[in-house]
Parts: sequence; C-alpha cells; structure tokens
Amino acid sequence: MTVQVEGLDFPDLVVASVQMEPHVGHTAANVARSVQLIEEAAAQGASIVVLPELANSGYVFASRAEAFALAEPVPDGPSTQAWADAARRCNVHVVAGIAEREDDRLYNAAAVLGPRGWLGTYRKLHLWGDEHLFFEPGNKGLPVFHTELGRLGVVICYDGWFPEAYRLLAMQGVDIVCMPTNWVPMPQQPADRPAMATTLAMASAHSNGMNIVCANRTGTERGQPFVGQSLIVGAQGWPLAGPASHDGEEILLARINLKASRQARHLNAFNDVLRDRRDDIYDPMLGTGWPLPRH
Amino acid sequence: MTVQVEGLDFPDLVVASVQMEPHVGHTAANVARSVQLIEEAAAQGASIVVLPELANSGYVFASRAEAFALAEPVPDGPSTQAWADAARRCNVHVVAGIAEREDDRLYNAAAVLGPRGWLGTYRKLHLWGDEHLFFEPGNKGLPVFHTELGRLGVVICYDGWFPEAYRLLAMQGVDIVCMPTNWVPMPQQPADRPAMATTLAMASAHSNGMNIVCANRTGTERGQPFVGQSLIVGAQGWPLAGPASHDGEEILLARINLKASRQARHLNAFNDVLRDRRDDIYDPMLGTGWPLPRH
Repeated sequence: MTVQVEGLDFPDLVVASVQMEPHVGHTAANVARSVQLIEEAAAQGASIVVLPELANSGYVFASRAEAFALAEPVPDGPSTQAWADAARRCNVHVVAGIAEREDDRLYNAAAVLGPRGWLGTYRKLHLWGDEHLFFEPGNKGLPVFHTELGRLGVVICYDGWFPEAYRLLAMQGVDIVCMPTNWVPMPQQPADRPAMATTLAMASAHSNGMNIVCANRTGTERGQPFVGQSLIVGAQGWPLAGPASHDGEEILLARINLKASRQARHLNAFNDVLRDRRDDIYDPMLGTGWPLPRH
Repeated sequence: MTVQVEGLDFPDLVVASVQMEPHVGHTAANVARSVQLIEEAAAQGASIVVLPELANSGYVFASRAEAFALAEPVPDGPSTQAWADAARRCNVHVVAGIAEREDDRLYNAAAVLGPRGWLGTYRKLHLWGDEHLFFEPGNKGLPVFHTELGRLGVVICYDGWFPEAYRLLAMQGVDIVCMPTNWVPMPQQPADRPAMATTLAMASAHSNGMNIVCANRTGTERGQPFVGQSLIVGAQGWPLAGPASHDGEEILLARINLKASRQARHLNAFNDVLRDRRDDIYDPMLGTGWPLPRH
C-alpha cells in the first residue's frame, strides 16, 4: 500500500557562505580561521558551509616550488582532516577549496566533507590565468554528491563562466551548487554595479532552477585584488543572502527548501526549463556531429 | 603582397532596440507604427533595428482561428514586405518578430531584412506557455545571418533561458544577437530589481563575448502584462543602453565596435572563453553518449 502524503511539509535547511581572507603560505592559520567560521555558521543553524577557493593555501603562488609545497593530498592531508573533523563535530557538510596534490600533479580542488567524513573531491575544470602554471585541468567531470540534505554539485570560480557546467549539474538533478571562488575584477566593471560574477550566478540559478552558494575571498594578495560580494542565490535566481561586502570577513546564511527548489524548474503547465531543452538542435552542434569552425 | 594595417581603426556601428506596444489584431497599425520607429532609429544613425516579438500580430491570441488569421507568409506577406521596404529606404537591417504562416503551420518567427531585401527567417526554438497552442517549435536551428556589418544571430524571448542557444551562436562567430521579445513577469520578482531576463542577457553576453539587443513590448494584453525594460548589452556583459522603462514606447541606441567585440572573448594570455570550453567533459554528457536521467 502506498501512503500519499498530501502537501508534505518539507523543512528548510540553512546554508552558509563563508567570506574570508586566506593569506598565501599561512596554511595552518587559514584552516584554523576557516574552522572557527564553520563553527560559527553551524552555531547559527547552518547544515552546509561553503569556504572560498584555495582556502588553505591562498591564491597567488610565487613559483611552482611554492605551489607544490602548499598543496596537500585529499583526504589524507592536514587541511582536509581538520575540515572533516569540524564537519563531524558540528554535524555539517563542508565544501572547501583546497590546493590538492596527487603525486606530482596539482589540482585546484574542493573537498566535500560530511558528518561521517570525506565524500569526495571536485577538481576545477576551467583554469584561470596563471593557474595554468601550477594546476592540471580537472579530470573528474562534474560529480554529484548525494547527501541526506539533497544532491550537491560543485563548481569553482571561472567554471561559473561556463553555462555548460551548471546545465550538466542540473540535468543530474543537483539541488545546491557549492561554489568556492576567488573572484577578481572583470574588465570595464562599472563602479556602481555588482560584480559580473554575481550576475552569472543569478542567471545560472534561474535558468536551471538550482540554488547556488558562492563563497569568495577578500583582500589583495601579491598585487591581485579580490572582489568579495559572496552571494547565496535561490532556485528562482534571486539573491537569498548577500552580496556581501567587498572586503569584510562575513558569514552569509540563507534558508533553502528542497521541495520548493525541486519544483522551481516547473514554470507553468507547458514549461519545464530542463525538459524544454532542444537536444535535437543542440546535440548535433555541441556533440561530435557538427564540428564548429574556430573564429 | 600583404599589407599590414597596424591598429586598424574600425568604425562603431549604431544598433537600436525599439520598445513599443503592438495591439493584438491590429496588424496594419502595428506594422505602420513599427515602420515609423525604424525611420526614427535610422534618422538617429542606427544601422540595425530590432523590433519586439510578434510585432505585427500582438501576442495573446484568443483562438487558433485568430492566430491563423493574423499570421502571414514570410517574406511574401504584407508585414515583411513593409519592413523590407523600410530597410531598403532607410538603408538599415531590421529584425522583426512576426507570426509566420507556412501552409497550415504557424511559427513564432523573426524576419531578418537588409537594405537589399529579405535575408532569412529565424523560428523560435523554445515555445512559452500558451504559444504551444498556436505555434510549431522552430525547425531552422540557430542560423547565422552574414551581413556587411558583421554576423547576426537571432533568439526570441524564452530562447534566452537556454544558454545553449547563445553558446551555439557564439561558436558560430556571431557578433550581435538580436532578440525580439515579449518578456512577462517572472515568479518572485522583487519590486526593486530589474527583470530576470535582463540578468540572463547580461550573463549570456559576458560569458560569450557577444552583443545582445533585446527589444521588448509593453502594455497589458487580454490580462497578460509585459515588463518593458528593453536593453542593449555589450560584449563585456554590461548594459550599453537601457534598461528602458517598464511601460513607455522608447528607442534605445548604442554604439558597438566590431573589433572590440571580436576581441572580448580573449580574457588574458591564457584564457579565451570559447576555447576554454571543456568539450571533453561536456560532449559525452550533452551528446548522445551519456543519456542523463530525468529528475
């Protein structure tokens, strides 16, 4: 016998975006501070906490030697262990940007931890600027992390410039995209407008019916400024919390409802934004069938 | 012998977005008004003029009989002929939303006219709401219209919810996307924020390095309100003109430089947003190789 529960009342969950300023080379101090902020977010009710990109190591490496020295294996390195420990103690999920070392290859990665330990790793697919000097491009695709809270996906910073990444996560049913990021200023940024990255996040959330939790860093490192403005976007595309300040340490918190999120793709009795995709048109062009010219 | 022109000075061109209010059933009057606005835009220097979706017929049909009565063959029907005539007289390109009839099939289409006549037709790929009662889904893919001014692409309204459409135009080298639209209010729209559609346009322009000219209608038709806020976005993603008002007739004008636009995809010495696509990751997922589950 199937029991139908009418209007099943799904509780909200609270997600947190941690905006902070890692300092390159001060890995232990960066991780210690991030653990304090995880504890604070958990104390305020968060059950998912997202940290910035490269939250352990800092971003601007002076040499390959420095990058290799600061990177760690995942999950056995000390940074991941500290975050796993915090996730266990605080009963939260943590998505933390980390410089990952696997043998003699480095990845700009994110460790995904749950209350029972390490769930897996995402490796940034689209490298930005000088990252090409240190990291290998991600080789683990766009994995989905299944949790009791819902399906999590991860993208990192410049990945957000690729609508393909969001779409492929949505098509795998992802509810919440966790985005560790180190957003930098974009060309021609008008002083009176929010960072373009926040616009990209809103558009991607809306056109995929997914929540997106963006955690950016702040400060200027070896001449490279970062823009803050961390943001939590709901499945309709509107900000639930933030944008945060340009330069302050901040914890953003927002309530997300899984039931409402999973219904967000249904736009009306005719339209569901994922089912409306015209595969018949895209696939011959995007797939191997129609190699497009290079302009 | 090849002559190298250093720092070739490319002149700007002026594009226009015409925001107006068609009235359902008053086709001749709608087209006549649109021709006046094309003339005005041309007098102000425009060489490309974009009109709203279904600019000839109006949007909200009461029956299939009405929709069939208001639709016209392209290019031989009177609306396209009037626009072609205006394009010839004013020496401009015109992209005009039209209810197209081909035998006993209707399409929500856009006619593309140049100074020398009809260049082709785009048919909306992604139908919205009750459009499913009247129109066939577009069957002409995402064509590129090559002109002396540059490569033009067309999307219509809800097509803009599909980053795939913009990406496939960009990968074909499109410089300017012309978007006839009839944007309606989206769920949970905060009163103090611009329409989500303008966010989608900015994100798509930025992440593809393309200019996008959005021409929306205004007014309320048979109970359906439209949101105005027409917009011209530059290849960096920032608005060049607009958003226009929510309810007024308006011509937006903006200068576009083809040379700067074609360089917009080059982000730094490592990154070009189109070449950075990870086809190796996307294709097996988006193509036929990996049929994703339906959630």
